[in-house]
Amino acid sequence: MPNFDLIIRNGTIATASESYKADIGIRDGRIVAIGEALTGADEVVDATGKLVLPGGIDSHVHISQPSGPGIVMADDFESATRAAAFGGNSTVMPYCLQQKGESLRTVLKDYHALAQGNCHIDHSFHLIISDPTESVLGQELPALFANGYTSFKVFMTYEGMALDDYEMLSVLEVAREAGALVQIHAENYDAIRFLTDRLERAGKTAPHFHGRSRPIPVEREATHRAISLAELIDVPIMIVHVSNREAMEEIRRAQMRGLKVMGETCPQYLVLTESDMDRPGTEGAKYVCSPPPRDHASQEACWEGLQRGVFSVFSSDHCPFRYEDEAGKLAPKGRSSFRWVPNGIPGIETRLPILFSEGVVKGRISLEQFVALTATNHAKIYGLSGKGSIAVGYDADIAIWDPELKRPIQQAGLHHGADYTPFEGIEITGWPVSLLVRGNFIVREGELVGAKGEGRYLPRAKPFQSRPL
Amino acid sequence: MPNFDLIIRNGTIATASESYKADIGIRDGRIVAIGEALTGADEVVDATGKLVLPGGIDSHVHISQPSGPGIVMADDFESATRAAAFGGNSTVMPYCLQQKGESLRTVLKDYHALAQGNCHIDHSFHLIISDPTESVLGQELPALFANGYTSFKVFMTYEGMALDDYEMLSVLEVAREAGALVQIHAENYDAIRFLTDRLERAGKTAPHFHGRSRPIPVEREATHRAISLAELIDVPIMIVHVSNREAMEEIRRAQMRGLKVMGETCPQYLVLTESDMDRPGTEGAKYVCSPPPRDHASQEACWEGLQRGVFSVFSSDHCPFRYEDEAGKLAPKGRSSFRWVPNGIPGIETRLPILFSEGVVKGRISLEQFVALTATNHAKIYGLSGKGSIAVGYDADIAIWDPELKRPIQQAGLHHGADYTPFEGIEITGWPVSLLVRGNFIVREGELVGAKGEGRYLPRAKPFQSRPL
Amino acid sequence: MPNFDLIIRNGTIATASESYKADIGIRDGRIVAIGEALTGADEVVDATGKLVLPGGIDSHVHISQPSGPGIVMADDFESATRAAAFGGNSTVMPYCLQQKGESLRTVLKDYHALAQGNCHIDHSFHLIISDPTESVLGQELPALFANGYTSFKVFMTYEGMALDDYEMLSVLEVAREAGALVQIHAENYDAIRFLTDRLERAGKTAPHFHGRSRPIPVEREATHRAISLAELIDVPIMIVHVSNREAMEEIRRAQMRGLKVMGETCPQYLVLTESDMDRPGTEGAKYVCSPPPRDHASQEACWEGLQRGVFSVFSSDHCPFRYEDEAGKLAPKGRSSFRWVPNGIPGIETRLPILFSEGVVKGRISLEQFVALTATNHAKIYGLSGKGSIAVGYDADIAIWDPELKRPIQQAGLHHGADYTPFEGIEITGWPVSLLVRGNFIVREGELVGAKGEGRYLPRAKPFQSRPL
Amino acid sequence: MPNFDLIIRNGTIATASESYKADIGIRDGRIVAIGEALTGADEVVDATGKLVLPGGIDSHVHISQPSGPGIVMADDFESATRAAAFGGNSTVMPYCLQQKGESLRTVLKDYHALAQGNCHIDHSFHLIISDPTESVLGQELPALFANGYTSFKVFMTYEGMALDDYEMLSVLEVAREAGALVQIHAENYDAIRFLTDRLERAGKTAPHFHGRSRPIPVEREATHRAISLAELIDVPIMIVHVSNREAMEEIRRAQMRGLKVMGETCPQYLVLTESDMDRPGTEGAKYVCSPPPRDHASQEACWEGLQRGVFSVFSSDHCPFRYEDEAGKLAPKGRSSFRWVPNGIPGIETRLPILFSEGVVKGRISLEQFVALTATNHAKIYGLSGKGSIAVGYDADIAIWDPELKRPIQQAGLHHGADYTPFEGIEITGWPVSLLVRGNFIVREGELVGAKGEGRYLPRAKPFQSRPL
Repeated sequence: MPNFDLIIRNGTIATASESYKADIGIRDGRIVAIGEALTGADEVVDATGKLVLPGGIDSHVHISQPSGPGIVMADDFESATRAAAFGGNSTVMPYCLQQKGESLRTVLKDYHALAQGNCHIDHSFHLIISDPTESVLGQELPALFANGYTSFKVFMTYEGMALDDYEMLSVLEVAREAGALVQIHAENYDAIRFLTDRLERAGKTAPHFHGRSRPIPVEREATHRAISLAELIDVPIMIVHVSNREAMEEIRRAQMRGLKVMGETCPQYLVLTESDMDRPGTEGAKYVCSPPPRDHASQEACWEGLQRGVFSVFSSDHCPFRYEDEAGKLAPKGRSSFRWVPNGIPGIETRLPILFSEGVVKGRISLEQFVALTATNHAKIYGLSGKGSIAVGYDADIAIWDPELKRPIQQAGLHHGADYTPFEGIEITGWPVSLLVRGNFIVREGELVGAKGEGRYLPRAKPFQSRPL
Repeated sequence: MPNFDLIIRNGTIATASESYKADIGIRDGRIVAIGEALTGADEVVDATGKLVLPGGIDSHVHISQPSGPGIVMADDFESATRAAAFGGNSTVMPYCLQQKGESLRTVLKDYHALAQGNCHIDHSFHLIISDPTESVLGQELPALFANGYTSFKVFMTYEGMALDDYEMLSVLEVAREAGALVQIHAENYDAIRFLTDRLERAGKTAPHFHGRSRPIPVEREATHRAISLAELIDVPIMIVHVSNREAMEEIRRAQMRGLKVMGETCPQYLVLTESDMDRPGTEGAKYVCSPPPRDHASQEACWEGLQRGVFSVFSSDHCPFRYEDEAGKLAPKGRSSFRWVPNGIPGIETRLPILFSEGVVKGRISLEQFVALTATNHAKIYGLSGKGSIAVGYDADIAIWDPELKRPIQQAGLHHGADYTPFEGIEITGWPVSLLVRGNFIVREGELVGAKGEGRYLPRAKPFQSRPL
Repeated sequence: MPNFDLIIRNGTIATASESYKADIGIRDGRIVAIGEALTGADEVVDATGKLVLPGGIDSHVHISQPSGPGIVMADDFESATRAAAFGGNSTVMPYCLQQKGESLRTVLKDYHALAQGNCHIDHSFHLIISDPTESVLGQELPALFANGYTSFKVFMTYEGMALDDYEMLSVLEVAREAGALVQIHAENYDAIRFLTDRLERAGKTAPHFHGRSRPIPVEREATHRAISLAELIDVPIMIVHVSNREAMEEIRRAQMRGLKVMGETCPQYLVLTESDMDRPGTEGAKYVCSPPPRDHASQEACWEGLQRGVFSVFSSDHCPFRYEDEAGKLAPKGRSSFRWVPNGIPGIETRLPILFSEGVVKGRISLEQFVALTATNHAKIYGLSGKGSIAVGYDADIAIWDPELKRPIQQAGLHHGADYTPFEGIEITGWPVSLLVRGNFIVREGELVGAKGEGRYLPRAKPFQSRPL
Repeated sequence: MPNFDLIIRNGTIATASESYKADIGIRDGRIVAIGEALTGADEVVDATGKLVLPGGIDSHVHISQPSGPGIVMADDFESATRAAAFGGNSTVMPYCLQQKGESLRTVLKDYHALAQGNCHIDHSFHLIISDPTESVLGQELPALFANGYTSFKVFMTYEGMALDDYEMLSVLEVAREAGALVQIHAENYDAIRFLTDRLERAGKTAPHFHGRSRPIPVEREATHRAISLAELIDVPIMIVHVSNREAMEEIRRAQMRGLKVMGETCPQYLVLTESDMDRPGTEGAKYVCSPPPRDHASQEACWEGLQRGVFSVFSSDHCPFRYEDEAGKLAPKGRSSFRWVPNGIPGIETRLPILFSEGVVKGRISLEQFVALTATNHAKIYGLSGKGSIAVGYDADIAIWDPELKRPIQQAGLHHGADYTPFEGIEITGWPVSLLVRGNFIVREGELVGAKGEGRYLPRAKPFQSRPL
């Protein structure tokens, strides 16, 4: 038995299938032994009374992405990955947004440049395809797939990003040939435009009307359409950020027909509702994201989707904007018409505590399901080899949790670049206290100990190397 | 008791709820008495052993409609209404197709001119909206509704006709305000274009591939989308020519959620299948229509839809083209690529015998359901006051059927302008032998006795004056 | 044109498919003409502003049925048929209850003796089979079917009446061979016994606990079981008095699978709820019936079942007991334990006004649906030839309604033998004001004008001579 | 790092969530380390190219159970556990059948006596409750639960064993109070009796008619009823040996309503069909079990249930009888009337190879799902602590598989006491070659190396210590 660089002793390890007490022996960044009473390490960390979980993987985050004239995201790669680390994550998967006319190679070069040397944790990229030209479809995508860019996202809404159904089919066809996975943002663009026009004509411009501009049938319709298009091509898809029962049931219906359709939901659909956008003044703007949070019945449906495997991943859809500008005045998030409120909320640091506290502690899901939904399934689905579990041979990406630590979510305690959190005040039981990436502490007992740049870029294998749970 | 112009004696009368023996007394074109042993008429017709049914209403026919460069329909108003009369119909509802740039008033003027003086039976018009400009939506449609044009149709597919979802919503909004009914042709345009492109690239151009270019999910998707758009506006719609179980189930799901969604199916979905398009040479072109006939399981689903009220109307979607041209050569229907085969089949004369023989005689539906599906519900849904039943005060629109007459469908015995029937050879038990419109014989014992021009134009009341059965 | 005995002039006639203005000419008890401006009658009744509907048929009533030691029903045939007449009914179908050991012939003889000479309106009998011996199954039932007893009822609950599944299958098998229709009271006997035992042990004996002793799954279970047994035998059944969505959905599921399963609901499931049994003292006992009224969501489900054809008949399940005894003391209905409260409520006179006012006037169903649900479908389903519609050749069973008459339901204004109505105080718009049976007035302008004994016994034809609507 | 008794080197370990290469270190019967290049053991076994899986747990087997006059099971505890070991199982859970009048303590004493000293692998018992007297329900069951008998089974069919619904509710009530899990054999007893009587009367007695005597609705009905009864009590249940889509869908419906209903299926429902009972002579008797195998569509449904988590366990329902008697003549299995054919088939040794070959090798399920369905979930659901996975601290119950070994199933190669296998001739890829129970080889490279008596009895913890996958 060789020596270890580090032993994590006496914690309760959880995987997607079991929880048990054991020590973990780490060498050269990987887990090389799990056993009783391991010895022979340079350093031993005692985890008695703690949970030792795979580091979270957040497969849906937006960082440093351009968001309209004069609007910048509140997080760059340094701040986003720092916040992610404090939130128990060892890997994030941000998007590289192709804008009309850009080649994908250029886009990737730009985002790699932004990330390079700035990340505290590991990262890999999804491409967003907004201009599926012949060269994008015929040459770039197949080549990039071979280089480890094995998933991409398309939008069915948003000016300048929405693909029409012909383009959707073209992208799905390329994905099928390559074996890539396509994420789909499913909302009906025309319906949103129509309803927004009608609301504006009627002078209904407060943040609250954001929800009215994209009601549930708008999302259900696009979800069913996305599924139908994928069915025509016979290719797996991931419907991201599902917010309500009707869209969830479309996914379930598709799964029952044997289609390879997966779903994702996010914290905002478990703990926020449309009524949060009713807050006085422009405060409601802090909750504007798409799809919008719905109601309590929708929250129940999202929990059911998580419990019964309709959703296989739980992500943040972190998309941070400042509410006030640097001069302390009304910044983008506070603008007075819902149509121009930057669409998105921060959540990279709070995703795991919310699901742990509301899910595991309250008995809605098991600890093993938590691990599957926040780490293991992300790795399996998106082809992150050697990530997402605690097993011999895997990267030593480990979050140490204090399952009894109680503390509300407060902006003051968070590390992201946004100046507010939509989850302010939610009482949480169970927080991550330390985080290791490939065997190195990034956060230790609540302190940042890693230097930026320790996070590596991860090219990915073909999706679905093994089946999600 | 006043005298009658005509008594129909001793037949079995059927309405949508009852069948019973009685005499019918007609005066001034209307039914003024139903009774036992009526007397006192200028003329008495004996209907012993016959069924005396409301004349059929065919709410979905295309006549003299332009269909692409150099392609003319095989029927003008004279031939179409003559064939309809022989098929037991007393009213038809053809379409007035708006082409891009046209005003609706102009369109209506043209079609009225074509119909004027040429119709053997009564007729009313649906408008097809293919260019929903501001003036169409804001001025023409509301004004036309007030003039009795209370339904219109939109297409989700076809070059030059397909509306996008924004336009669909705009049309539905106008319909909601007016109380009009919108018919929707539900197939996904982009998906058909995409699949057609792929088939053509692969050299798959035989008529058979018409079906492959628009498989069931293409129709199911558009059906669900149409329903979703109507749900956003909260307006009733009619999904026309449903061909299969999946689309039918979307309608049933919507009905179960309480939405006012109705459905229609047609003879081609009961007795033809996709394999008819496999016939040798270009014969398959005789069966090209959209949606395409599917398979036997789809036929069963369409019967189930008729039996259980998912579909409230049964129409022909008569859309006739010649198979050979006048020189005896290959006419449009025979062209070698499915993409250019004129899309549609003749059926105005065979709709009722097919449903009677396959439905009533074979015990799938009752005689009362037959009456509801072919006459009564059309009148109720589309606002044809005083039409669609045999009751005192109603127009004396009456078809006299010999329920035991056996004769196969043969082109030689039909009266339409097409040079073939896709239903050739189907054995039929039960044919209409005489037809009266407003008390006048148009067809009598199998002979045309009316002059063209006897048919009147019918402005319509608001849809749903009473609930369909 | 011969003379009429009576003309009903100028009313609005409604059938299950149409409403229209016309006169009705009656001779020898039958409708012999419907027409405009009929003349030549001994008597003419003006019905201007009135609805002229088929007399109601109530296919589910209990009269003079033994109900346990010392408990007699509050209605005999005279009072029940008088009340029915005032409620707009021209035919009732009471039950003849076989008790253990009795031959069916004896049972029938007894009930005929009770009815003979006492009925104000027409009547026909269903048999209740509680002792399916070999001679009952092998000899009596087939012979009785041939004599016009073409339907029978079985119970899945109640001491002394519940059949086990083997017996149910035996009865269904006989029904299949004869072409008879079996009505099924679907509640799980063992589950009710079990829950009742547990409630009593816990001292929970107030009327309110009647509902707790037979919650929705108890009814849903038995409904599904009844359907499954009928499916094994391949025979149509009628599930009577459905009270909630879950049982309704079982029927709908069966219908969708193509099974010939029909459903019935009753006024108590539209306007009462379980909370009515909470009333102070023993007042709650006035609402005890089985299945019990549920909640508002269940009411909505029952309306949906009526609207969408899941239920084809609407009956009263009239089962009247006195609340006080003759000495003015607590009579059976008031006893202190729910287990011994006689199970049933009066409703024969209020069924039609409740459905008219809550259904037609409030826009939930059309007038034509009202006719189908209260008359036409009963006649079609149970084989009552010449009944249930207004058509030439049919019996002149006619109810004349004042659709605008507003008056609450009040015990003081009713004619049944019970000393209360569970529907006390419900505001009604639309009441029947006159009733004719076979052309004779029984009730005229709110006064009883017929003598008892005018009602005839009706042997019945095979069920489903024509399809219900 | 302490020394190991045994190291299994270099195999591919699979759990319910991951597969990876590592060595396993075993000491004192438990897994104490999983790591790379473990050293320091008394013995090292090389597993290169092999799969190292948790030993199978078969939670549904019948051993030495009385089965009718003169009929003995073909397996005692010695032969059954030997066969189980060769089939890759380390734990079996046979039934202890209470017969009418017996106390549970007596029953348990008898079965323990049969097992004691005779088992090759570990075992635990479920009780079958066929006589739920007051003392059984009130005293014995609660006491036995405290002693580690935490699950019991009830039958809804079979002479002498079927409970009525009142008894079912009583047993479920006790289970709810104790936290025990009830397994339910769901078929409708009366319906089977009825259909059997009818078949026998018609002279239809060949084995083939076994299937006709209990068609799918018989199973679906009882499944829905079992679920309804559990719903009334609010207690989890396990529906065992589900054979078809309709019963599976009842379970899925219940799960969707949030009920804690689980399902099990078995090899016979994946690879046999009703037509196997058509084989010539009395050969069909070899396939007689209940529920009977159905058809190919049912097989697909059972696969779907396994894939999508409707079923959480896959068991054998091993219930072995000899086809010939000891004199070589027709033994019980061959008797000429289906009613008297002993009901059950052997399968303890073939369960895992069939699921591996048809499921994992053919790509229908993942290796991880295989582990969950055959071991992990059984342990979680039935409270077998420290069993069912490969993890530090768990019992070293390990099956070593050669995933490429191809060999058909042949009676000659099996070790059970039956004289045939219904799975004869099925080609299998992937067989277990060695088996360890608590660190000791029972089977090694295809040879039995353990002595009988090494298997231990396992009292169990409360069910659902953790959630099945």
